[in-house]
Amino acid sequence: MNRIIIQQVWLDGRTCDVLVEGNKIGRIADSIVEPADKIVDGRHKALIPGFANAHAHSAMTLFRGLGEDIPLMKWLHEYIWPYEAKLDEEMIYWGAKLACVEMIRSGTTACNDMYWHPAICLKAMEEMGLRSVQSYAWIDFFDEERAKAHKVNLVRMHKESAGWSELTGFSIAPHAIYSVSAHSLKWMADYAREHGLMLHIHLAESRTEYEDCVRERGVTPTRYLYELGVLGPHVVAAHGVWLSPEDILILGHHGVSVVHNPNSNLKLASGYKFKYNELKDAGVRVCLGTDGCASSNNLDMLEAMKHAALLQKAWRSDPASMPLGELLDIASLHGYEAMGINAGKIEEGRLADMALIDLLQSAFVPRHNFHANLVYAANGSAVDTLICNGRILMENKKIDGERQILEMTQKMAEKLVKL
Amino acid sequence: MNRIIIQQVWLDGRTCDVLVEGNKIGRIADSIVEPADKIVDGRHKALIPGFANAHAHSAMTLFRGLGEDIPLMKWLHEYIWPYEAKLDEEMIYWGAKLACVEMIRSGTTACNDMYWHPAICLKAMEEMGLRSVQSYAWIDFFDEERAKAHKVNLVRMHKESAGWSELTGFSIAPHAIYSVSAHSLKWMADYAREHGLMLHIHLAESRTEYEDCVRERGVTPTRYLYELGVLGPHVVAAHGVWLSPEDILILGHHGVSVVHNPNSNLKLASGYKFKYNELKDAGVRVCLGTDGCASSNNLDMLEAMKHAALLQKAWRSDPASMPLGELLDIASLHGYEAMGINAGKIEEGRLADMALIDLLQSAFVPRHNFHANLVYAANGSAVDTLICNGRILMENKKIDGERQILEMTQKMAEKLVKL
Repeated sequence: MNRIIIQQVWLDGRTCDVLVEGNKIGRIADSIVEPADKIVDGRHKALIPGFANAHAHSAMTLFRGLGEDIPLMKWLHEYIWPYEAKLDEEMIYWGAKLACVEMIRSGTTACNDMYWHPAICLKAMEEMGLRSVQSYAWIDFFDEERAKAHKVNLVRMHKESAGWSELTGFSIAPHAIYSVSAHSLKWMADYAREHGLMLHIHLAESRTEYEDCVRERGVTPTRYLYELGVLGPHVVAAHGVWLSPEDILILGHHGVSVVHNPNSNLKLASGYKFKYNELKDAGVRVCLGTDGCASSNNLDMLEAMKHAALLQKAWRSDPASMPLGELLDIASLHGYEAMGINAGKIEEGRLADMALIDLLQSAFVPRHNFHANLVYAANGSAVDTLICNGRILMENKKIDGERQILEMTQKMAEKLVKL
Repeated sequence: MNRIIIQQVWLDGRTCDVLVEGNKIGRIADSIVEPADKIVDGRHKALIPGFANAHAHSAMTLFRGLGEDIPLMKWLHEYIWPYEAKLDEEMIYWGAKLACVEMIRSGTTACNDMYWHPAICLKAMEEMGLRSVQSYAWIDFFDEERAKAHKVNLVRMHKESAGWSELTGFSIAPHAIYSVSAHSLKWMADYAREHGLMLHIHLAESRTEYEDCVRERGVTPTRYLYELGVLGPHVVAAHGVWLSPEDILILGHHGVSVVHNPNSNLKLASGYKFKYNELKDAGVRVCLGTDGCASSNNLDMLEAMKHAALLQKAWRSDPASMPLGELLDIASLHGYEAMGINAGKIEEGRLADMALIDLLQSAFVPRHNFHANLVYAANGSAVDTLICNGRILMENKKIDGERQILEMTQKMAEKLVKL
């Protein structure tokens, strides 16, 4: 069994040794003197749980910087959708590999991914050693024939997923209420419940989605899903920007996880008054995501943490909202819980998904408050070493094969825009 | 004369050589083959103007992380003011040195600084090779005796500033309308005008400042300064969050520069609806700053650019507001203009204040849009090499003496909180 000892690392205010045994955290003690396959020098470093990016479209790194400073519909119609129609498997593979590089560099160990060709994305993720949940994405635009084809493909992929490694889970992803029929939503809800699968959906992202739903169906998007029987503790709802007080109670009552994506919401001007306090009070598990690089431009969860907290303080005029003590759980533990994975805390017995933070930089001086320095002063570049499932994916800021991934993704992007 | 050639660097869409002669940009051409003291390999790098941080309190790095998640008045009364009262010159020196490290690392070449003991701050800045304007900060709390003492000290420091190097300018900084008497403001306005000095002031930062002024004086803070005869093209007003439509016209009419500090405004919940479009339309020069690390937690101008643009898009529900093409000027050229320094563009004849950006990282792949990658995907860690006044202050991410500065500042901070 693989054994790594991280020596003399800063962990929540103490200096200690941490033993990784296989893919788990085996022991945490003042000093661990035992045989090991690998010793990691933890001096001048802090150990934190790896981040769980609870809503991402990893291969969309290919679109980074395409179509900037333009309104949503123009952006979708002139950039995103035409280019998405041209994507091939090789492009998606390299786009996802680049996403892995970026996640590893910025401390993310698990990703709740939603994109086309999940089998390609999972290949990229597993090669890089990252944990992910890959979804079967479903858009039928209320067309029965499309829905039929989706059913067949979804069931086939679900069967195939039995052969996926321990690093990768399978989920069902109806895109949104405006792109998937009620009949399909119900079918997926039943299927997910029957097979114990996560259901990953965009919900209440924009004012348009909310207002259209109220006008056309007489209920809010959240209530619509509730009435269809979709909601439950296996549901991960991305965005949740436009929620009525009743919606928040419904989400809490059903144990839904809601993923806040501050960067994307800001950039696309989808709305910024995310109701963190109200959701928390209603018992909703609030997670954090970056969304895809087409709208968020990067996959840096430290940046997402900072933006989530700053926004919350600003729009509520309350500097005490979303305090540091809750923020790290939002960015790690909650995402892991939503994915059903036993990580997100540095505790014996948990999976060894962890990041080592380089403290020898100005962001961590003075050391009045480590978490404030991490979230408000540092950024993803503070991550020195990343361990996922007990394996070291980056050490001293070096990732194997990074240069080739940058070059291949650049080639794929050039090919894409020329098509 | 010092001659540096930067070879084969990416500059605004072309690859070229750039010759630095003395402290200026001497020539930009496809290829420059000439003797030089130093050759910088510009391959896989982009050249951009160094940033001008138009409102900072550099030595406040010492307070980074002190007093988090608490309201403004508690923060001031229980943390900032008690600790500021205990600062000595050695602490300020090392705090400013740490600020220099952070600015150099994140691409800032000039800083409009406002703090106590400017002679100490300028020593730190000049040793590190950075350009700054150091201010005489004036708070009298409407006390005539204090004001008298300030006059004497200000005039003395102004005389001394004649001996400062070309790197450092002198300005007058009445703190704010709520901490400085009308008589003092008038006196400083006259003195600044007579001697051609910049006047650097906090203006319309919080709702309280605005509402108190309207209640007590019957006019807005901006109109109050106008009626006192303070405003003019030499005035740099920090924050400007709370402005009436008339205030915006007044600022534009007088050619005032307004410095947006998005991080600090968000974190202290001072207000986030900065009226960029309106200020620009009124002819106001909008600059960018980080404010001090006590509230912004870092001095990363790339982060400030990103936050400024994201906020603007979000609160206006307009993804086209504050476009990339305007953002780099806001963060560089405008700040330099406000400080009266001929830099902020990569052009022959301008001062050589420039940053080299490392393009071999995921944030710059794909290369659909360099500026989008720089602002929205990257962060301050993308800066590889910094040149200020023709001198290389950081090369390949290495700064001379950095480790000692981190250690000394840590010691000073520990001493401070124990006092």
